[in-house]
This record gives sequence, C-alpha cells and structure tokens, in this order.
Amino acid sequence: MAPDPDARIRELFEFLRIPSISVRSEHTEDTRRAAEWVVGALDRAGLGGSLVETEGHPVALGEWRGAGKDAPTLLIYGHYDVQPPEPIELWTSPPFDPTIRDSRIYARGAADNKGQLFLHLKALEEVLSARATLPVNVVVLAEGEEEIASPNLLPFLERHRDRLNADAVLISDSAMFGPGLPCLLQSLRGLAYFEVRVRGTSQDLHSGSYGGAVANAATTLARMVATLHDDRGRVAVPGFYDRVLDWDGDVRDRVRELPFRETAFFEEAGALGPSGEVGYSTLERLWSRPTCEVNGLLSGYTGEGAKTVIPATAMAKVSCRLVPDQDPSEVGRLLRAHLDRVAPADVHVELDELAGGRPWRADLEGPFFEAARRALRSGFGVEPILVGEGASIPIVTELERLVGARAVLMGFALPGANMHAPDEWFPEAHVGLGIKTLVRYYEELERLLA
Amino acid sequence: MAPDPDARIRELFEFLRIPSISVRSEHTEDTRRAAEWVVGALDRAGLGGSLVETEGHPVALGEWRGAGKDAPTLLIYGHYDVQPPEPIELWTSPPFDPTIRDSRIYARGAADNKGQLFLHLKALEEVLSARATLPVNVVVLAEGEEEIASPNLLPFLERHRDRLNADAVLISDSAMFGPGLPCLLQSLRGLAYFEVRVRGTSQDLHSGSYGGAVANAATTLARMVATLHDDRGRVAVPGFYDRVLDWDGDVRDRVRELPFRETAFFEEAGALGPSGEVGYSTLERLWSRPTCEVNGLLSGYTGEGAKTVIPATAMAKVSCRLVPDQDPSEVGRLLRAHLDRVAPADVHVELDELAGGRPWRADLEGPFFEAARRALRSGFGVEPILVGEGASIPIVTELERLVGARAVLMGFALPGANMHAPDEWFPEAHVGLGIKTLVRYYEELERLLA
Repeated sequence: MAPDPDARIRELFEFLRIPSISVRSEHTEDTRRAAEWVVGALDRAGLGGSLVETEGHPVALGEWRGAGKDAPTLLIYGHYDVQPPEPIELWTSPPFDPTIRDSRIYARGAADNKGQLFLHLKALEEVLSARATLPVNVVVLAEGEEEIASPNLLPFLERHRDRLNADAVLISDSAMFGPGLPCLLQSLRGLAYFEVRVRGTSQDLHSGSYGGAVANAATTLARMVATLHDDRGRVAVPGFYDRVLDWDGDVRDRVRELPFRETAFFEEAGALGPSGEVGYSTLERLWSRPTCEVNGLLSGYTGEGAKTVIPATAMAKVSCRLVPDQDPSEVGRLLRAHLDRVAPADVHVELDELAGGRPWRADLEGPFFEAARRALRSGFGVEPILVGEGASIPIVTELERLVGARAVLMGFALPGANMHAPDEWFPEAHVGLGIKTLVRYYEELERLLA
Repeated sequence: MAPDPDARIRELFEFLRIPSISVRSEHTEDTRRAAEWVVGALDRAGLGGSLVETEGHPVALGEWRGAGKDAPTLLIYGHYDVQPPEPIELWTSPPFDPTIRDSRIYARGAADNKGQLFLHLKALEEVLSARATLPVNVVVLAEGEEEIASPNLLPFLERHRDRLNADAVLISDSAMFGPGLPCLLQSLRGLAYFEVRVRGTSQDLHSGSYGGAVANAATTLARMVATLHDDRGRVAVPGFYDRVLDWDGDVRDRVRELPFRETAFFEEAGALGPSGEVGYSTLERLWSRPTCEVNGLLSGYTGEGAKTVIPATAMAKVSCRLVPDQDPSEVGRLLRAHLDRVAPADVHVELDELAGGRPWRADLEGPFFEAARRALRSGFGVEPILVGEGASIPIVTELERLVGARAVLMGFALPGANMHAPDEWFPEAHVGLGIKTLVRYYEELERLLA
C-alpha cells in the first residue's frame, strides 16, 4: 500500500506539538513526552524503541540487527528537543501549533530537528514494512539535549559503547543549498559560547546622585564588547586566528562558482546588505571564517519610559563560531585573557563557558557517503553539491570519536528555515522527497556493499 | 498637645504603602489613591485639599490664603509618585511595605519624595493647629508625574497661573550633605534621556547559518555606545561641552574643603573606587560635570543558558546629566548627529527623546533663602553648607519660570538613600527633625518679613 501523505503530516504534527524545550526546566515533562513519541515511532518502524535514562533528558533508542553480526552498522543520530520559541510575539502562528502556509510547515522544530528525524523514522518504517530487511544493521539514537550542548550524551555513549559501535553515522540536521539543490556537507563550524558579566557597584544607583563618579557596568560592558572586533570586521582577540586553516585556492574557486543567490539570502535575513570580515565573500564568511557574535545583552532598566539608574551589572552572551582547527577551550582561554586585559580596574568581570563544540570536516570517501550522493541524485533528480555549513552540530566530532566512525551529513531543510528564530519552517514537499531519498539510501547501500 | 511620633510614622507608612508608580499604567488607580491621600492630609493640615485633574495623573492642591492679599505667597512643590521598584528581588523588605531597620525607614518613596512631602504637610498642620496662622500665604502642589518628567504639570501651571503665582518656591526632594550636615542647594544637574534602537535584520537569525555575514545589532550597538566616551572618561559627542560653564577657582576650592567622606561614598555605592572624567574630583564629577550614562541594555537572548541567535534589534537607554548652560534639546541634536556619524551602513538607528530637564543654579539672596538657612541651623544645630547636587529636578527651572519666582531647595534625605534603587530609605530621626526645621522656617520667615 502506498504511503498516505496526509497521515504522515498528521503524524509529524503530533510530534511537533510537543513543546520539548530542553533548556527550560518547566518543560521537562514535555521533553520526556517527545522522547516517548520517538520510542513509539521506532516501535512502529520495527526498530524496537526504548527510552534510556540519563542524568538529564532521556535518549530514545531503536535497533534493527537483522543484517547480522558481520554486516556493517549504521548509526542514525537526531534530536527531539527544540530551541526556546521566544520572542513568541514574532511568530505568525503559535510555535507548537504546526500550520501549513504556502507549502511550508511552520513550527518550532519543523526543521531543527524533529521534521528531519521524522524522515528517517518513516523511511525505515517503509523499507522494513515493504521488505522486512535492511542491507545494514541500523541503530537510531535520538537525544533530548542537543540544544543545550548534549551534556549527558557523551556519558551515555561511553556507557553503551558496545551497543553503539558503528561503521558510519548518518545525520540529517542541516539544510540543502537551495530549493532543488541537494548537498552533502564537507564542513561544520564549531561553537564556543560564553556569558560575560560585568559588575560595577553592589546595587543600581541613581544616575544623578552617582553619575559621573562611579563605574557604569553597561557602558563598560559595551566598551569591552567593542574591543572584540577591529574596523575591518576581524575578531580582535589576540591569538584567535592562530589555528584557523585557510581554504586553498581550488576550494575558494569552487565555492565562488556555486549558484548562491546573495540578494535572496539577505532578503530572507531582512538585512540591508552584506556585512562581515573584509576580504571574504558571503559564503566564505559563513563556511570558512570564524566569528564572534553577541547573542544577548541585558543591563539596568529595559522597560517602558525613562528610569535614571546606573546599572550595577551588565551581561552579554557572546559566542564564537569556529573553523578547523580552532578549539573551543583554547578560544575560551584567549577570550578570558583578552577581557582581563581590556577590563578597566573599576569593575569585576566574570566569564562562564556555556557551551562548546569542535569544528568538523567530512570524509568524502566510502560507501556510506557515496550512497548518500546517489540517493540525493535519485531523490531530487540532480547531482548534490559539496558545501560548507556555518552552523554547528557540536556532537558530530564527539560521535565520530565515540562510535569509531565518520559521519555523513545530509540535510533536507531549506536556507532561511528560521531554525532558532521565530517562524521556523520545513518544506511540506520535502517530507515526501526526504523519505523517498532515505528509502533509496538503503537501496544504494545494498548495491555498494554487495 | 505635643505631636505623637508614633502616630506620625503610622501616618507616613499609610502614604508609603500606596504603590503610586506613575510610569506603569497598571498602577494608575494606585497613583490616584496617593493623590487622594495627599488631599486628605492637606485637609487635616488646614489647607483645604483638592484633587485637580490633568491629562495624566491628578495634582493634589492645597491653599491657605490667610496672610492676606498683600502678603507674599510661598509655593511648596512635591510629588506623590514614585520610581518603579525593580529589581524587586534586591529589596531586603518589600518596597511598599515600609519597615524600620537600624533607625531607617525602608520603602520606595521614603526619600523620593513622599517622606519629604510628608514633612511639609505635618509642619503646616502643626503651625496651623498651634497658631492658626502663617506669615505668608501657602500653596502646596503635589504632582503625580515627577518620575515621568511631568508631562502634564506645565499645562496645569499655565492653566492655573493666577492661582499659583508665588514669591518663592520651596522644594524638599534632595539630600543633606551627610548625617548632621544640613545643606542648601546651589545647583542641580539637568537631564536629557534617550532610547537608542539599532536594527540589523528583520528577525533574530541562527548565529551559525548567518553568523559572520549579516549585521549583528547587539555588537553594533555596543560599538556605538563605546564611541560615547574617550579613554579619559570624557564624553566624546562633538559639541557636548560647548555650553558647559566651568566653575571658577574659588568654588572649586570651597568644594574641595568640604568634609566629603569619599571612602564612605564608594562603600555605600558598593563601588571598587573612584571612576570618571580624568582631572576632576568626585564632587566635581557629581556637581559640575555633565555625564553620558547607559541606563539599560537589551538585545537578543537574555535567559538561562545558551541560545545561538544573532539579535535583530538592540536597545540602549542613554541619558546625559547636564550642567549650566547645557540645553537638553541641543544635546539631543548633538547625540543624534554623533550616532548618525558612527552608525555603520548595514543597520537602522533610531533615537527617541524620553525626558529632559534644564540644569539649574540657585539665587542665594532674599528672605525665603535666608529663612531656610536659619531654620536648618536651628533644626540641626549646625550652619548649613552650600552644595551642588548631581541629580535633576527637571521641574525646578520650569516652575520658576511659570510661577515667576526663584526656588529654594532644602532636602532632608541622606546620601546613599537609594532613591531610584532597591532599599530606598529615609532616616527615622529626620521625620521629627525635618518637621521641626520646617516649623521653624515659618517662624524665621515671620521675623525676616516683619
């Protein structure tokens, strides 16, 4: 029986309705419900789902070992947790009430990562229900802490190492290069995320009675943030670029030839035009260059009207996207040293590392990568291109290390999908195309491994 | 019958319990209740209180005209509205539940200005109940919008000009120089308060997918804020100092001789030590030098943990304290021109003027000033000193203009009173001493006008 597209969408919507916001303690039960949903879907697919506890949110695990001991094993990794939806008021429809408009499924998690994890669950269900077999053993691992930097996944992987050993890791948590332009990832940026706190006084003070004679934490923080870049958009933290591997001329040329619609990119971002490090194209800035971004600022009075306070404290969330071979811990040390150097003597400065992940480069050889290339060509009718990705999937390098295999990253979202922003969406048509591609993946793998 | 100190405190606490936060629309009714409370107190004092409507919060007005048409008239100005109490969690006891600890009355408005307005109401009540007469006609005007820059007071004053004409204005909304050190104000700083908003993109974006290639509103705002000062703590907005009148050597010398306990000042502020414009003492920085302070910062994600967004917008509350002869509107024009000059081309910048008030200098001559000097000497047993004040009472210069009289500013709070900050307080002993001083004021006035 052919799959019913409406039934699939209904099933996906069930999953998207669960507000599994892993960072918020008040959503702990919702996050568990999402894990249970995945376990149910694994059961329906024929992979015997189980919920495995961790110190934090549980892992949903499914296994099919029918290919036998000597056959290779594929580990599929995804996550069922989502980013917080704030600012809520900027969503056109509620973030946890999935809605189709203009052939797009709008919901928090539609692209990152519930929608894409769903494609794998359905593809496995279709192959196993049609043929009752797969060319490889398959383990599906869906965690609930990807959006909070996976604090409990590594202990989990270490504890279950024997069960999770694999010959390849397959992940769909990224985007295609454009509509009709499937791609395979050759690189991911890493992440080093910090919170900087400046304290000038023990309490907020009246700006008249004290203004001009005591440290202003907000002004000081702003001045410190302003030292993070030079006037050419280059990160001005000493040592920051020491480990950055420059792309060679060939790769730069290949990237420049890609059909990148720069105007559309800035239109989707609602930006006035290009910004960033002088001397690099937009795609180079996104794929090959590290960044240092302010993700949040908070200090003093931020409500309606005028309140004349000198803020006692000021906070900035600051994060760096890293490229090979930068190391998040080392970047933390460099940033700390820089802030200590530029901080004036009249304030206290604290720096916390909130999250980190290494940058990554793909292995472009082997049957698992080749099957992906062929499956995408078949699914979308066009040869996939090799691209970089500015975002991070911090777990990729750790997964590779712990399961002893290289990862293949094949994404089905589209650029501008608003992952981590209001109005996140996933193309409705890619539900069908994605499942078709992944079904084909197993067929190609069977041929290549034969 | 001698006044009962406990009854006075109970009566003051009634007033302090009313959360008359004028800036918050949800407290409109509370603000009116505070006005009604003042009207009742005026009635009890014998000044026939009335509530006069404005476009915003009402004015509480009381009059005693028993001195006759040919006698001078004194206008007493105060306000019954208060600053917002946030951050609430930093209050030791609730802001609207007045509490005495260590001989201090802790409550929002204890010093600014309910506690000090209360002294006038009780002094008038005592004089009129004891003697049934005053040496001058007295008008008491308590507004409910001082903390939001008095948008409706000027129209009110203009409409009721005949009724409010006066020969002097008396205001108690400031602090003494220290415990046991009464003072009279010779200057107030003005205020020019702005909100700066930067927009880089139409929505928050994923910092991986877009980071490095689009404008970051938070980073940009921080860089713009950093241009507001030079490395010597001087405001770097071109033209900012053009109208600043320097103090002459005599005044600087006199200020340097004041018994200013600098260490205690910074301890009360919880500051690590002196900060500010190079080349000036702390008191000069507070009294004679203008400032540019960031009062608040808000951008992007400010909650728990790490959220990898590029903020679409960033906001800073920025305010300048002004000294004679700076003008708030002109400072607004200079700031706007400066921000336009330093803003990069890839962001939109908006500047709103939220509040403004001119700086002020006192007239040190005449019976109304002299009576205040003598009353303070009598009340506190020591000659009051002449001081500047870093804070603003924006209405002073406007009041002087509209009622056609100069103002005398005689405050009873103490330094470090946390006006506009958590744990605002007023010395319990100054309730009695303040009322005694103000009762004496009318006696001295009688002598001087005889």
